[in-house]
Amino acid sequence: MATFCFKKLVIFGVGLIGGSLARALRERGESAAGGIVVGVGRSLASAERARQLGVVDEVVALDDDAALRGALAGADLVLIAAPVAQTEPLLARIASFLDDSTLITDAGSTKLDVVAAARSTLGARIGQFVPGHPVAGRESSGVEAALADLYVGRNVVLCPLPENRPADVARIEALWCAAGAVVSTMDAEQHDRVLASVSHLPHLLSFALVEQILGTPDAALKLSFAAGGFRDFTRIAASSPEMWRDICLANRTALVAELDGYLTVLAQLRAAIVAGDGAALEAVFARSRAARTAWQQRGTAADAEGAHGPCDPART
Amino acid sequence: MATFCFKKLVIFGVGLIGGSLARALRERGESAAGGIVVGVGRSLASAERARQLGVVDEVVALDDDAALRGALAGADLVLIAAPVAQTEPLLARIASFLDDSTLITDAGSTKLDVVAAARSTLGARIGQFVPGHPVAGRESSGVEAALADLYVGRNVVLCPLPENRPADVARIEALWCAAGAVVSTMDAEQHDRVLASVSHLPHLLSFALVEQILGTPDAALKLSFAAGGFRDFTRIAASSPEMWRDICLANRTALVAELDGYLTVLAQLRAAIVAGDGAALEAVFARSRAARTAWQQRGTAADAEGAHGPCDPART
Repeated sequence: MATFCFKKLVIFGVGLIGGSLARALRERGESAAGGIVVGVGRSLASAERARQLGVVDEVVALDDDAALRGALAGADLVLIAAPVAQTEPLLARIASFLDDSTLITDAGSTKLDVVAAARSTLGARIGQFVPGHPVAGRESSGVEAALADLYVGRNVVLCPLPENRPADVARIEALWCAAGAVVSTMDAEQHDRVLASVSHLPHLLSFALVEQILGTPDAALKLSFAAGGFRDFTRIAASSPEMWRDICLANRTALVAELDGYLTVLAQLRAAIVAGDGAALEAVFARSRAARTAWQQRGTAADAEGAHGPCDPART
Repeated sequence: MATFCFKKLVIFGVGLIGGSLARALRERGESAAGGIVVGVGRSLASAERARQLGVVDEVVALDDDAALRGALAGADLVLIAAPVAQTEPLLARIASFLDDSTLITDAGSTKLDVVAAARSTLGARIGQFVPGHPVAGRESSGVEAALADLYVGRNVVLCPLPENRPADVARIEALWCAAGAVVSTMDAEQHDRVLASVSHLPHLLSFALVEQILGTPDAALKLSFAAGGFRDFTRIAASSPEMWRDICLANRTALVAELDGYLTVLAQLRAAIVAGDGAALEAVFARSRAARTAWQQRGTAADAEGAHGPCDPART
């Protein structure tokens, strides 16, 4: 089992995502031999909470030039774990403070826009930036919700750039492996299409159902009879409005394409209902049920298999 | 606490819904003093399984004229717990065997079509039929999945007809109260609109998402990166295709109306995404999140309140 070592990790945004990685590197001692972790917050107060909880060793405010320069000096790793819309200003803020040997990665839910932001801000340092996305989340957010095992068995997607050195990509892969994740690589366009389909679109559809109910005269009555199906379908409608606004806009091309495909399916189902075409409805429902059941069984089988070795990616 | 007494209850369709009511009346002894329970199946073999499990005392095959006549003689209650499309042929089958004192109710997910079926088959006996719908279900089906506490704290909606005697409606209410349910009444048109919104539409939308993904070239890749949001959103896409085909057709008017309202919301969200209107997206997402969070908290508060008295409906 390989050990992931670092001297200084600087995390921008010590919330659920950044805080969970810090906790994982700290508490999963068998796979990570750590140096210090510095948390950078928009204010010192927000980052200070992470220090009090023992998630990071030192904290720095983003607007403190001297402290930020000091934090980045000698850092071997920087993780950007802020809402995707903040990626560009954050990279612009730190570009001039970076050492040649510092690797940068991110945890954004979209990748084409992050790559564009990195290219426009990092210039000749673009090869130091390895785009990434841990496909993990919870409804709860903030450093209080951070868990050392949030990434165990979860997918992390890296979208390496042509300018990245293979050894640097391998190092970011080892970082996530140390947290227990299963690391894959794909290109940014493919990543954004896949996530638009299985994550961004369902979130949009779930928000939309609650919005539609609220717009009807008998909304309160309807909600008072909502049961388990509604509960699960709309769980993700309790997600962060700001985060999902940013994701919908950042990934608008892929999301609109998936939405349009979905609208086509809905139009076909609507036509079958109006025409009383039970056979067409049943065929769609049976196909969906079979695929959903198989998907669940694969997940259960993977869980039963136990943990992958931390640096033994299951899928490449 | 009132006690619900019966001499003979005949259940058509001893699966999850009918079997759970039988188990509840049997095992919740403090609120139900029971006579015998007869299960009627399409074949003797299917009903026999319920008898072996101790869910019913006697079993009868639907196509056995003499046995069916004997089962219905002296029955004080009949429950139709079969897929809604079977309600009309079942009522037609039993109409001529019914005593004047036998009350009939059903557990169908739609009500306008069930009422129409009852009117066309029961004729002058229509006053003996009290339409009902226990809003409870699980992905699993069949008598093996039947639970004595399936209805505890769940909503049961009755849609009384003008021809029903108030005492008969009160008796059906007491039946479900004895199983632990919270009983409400509304008219059939309102019931179908409410359920179309919070149950039937989410099921259709969930099936549709899996269908849409399956129709894309990279379906397998997409599914391999699907995570918790997809899991919850599509849990109900593993539901019975036959049952949901029947519901979509039986409730097509209300379902298409809700679907069209939903398509209007999706068109607005699509336009906001294309226009880059983050404020519009965030307003919708924030409204949905607030309503979904409040809904969840009401549910949690109701759970914490503990069981309602079995004949103390919480909502009228």
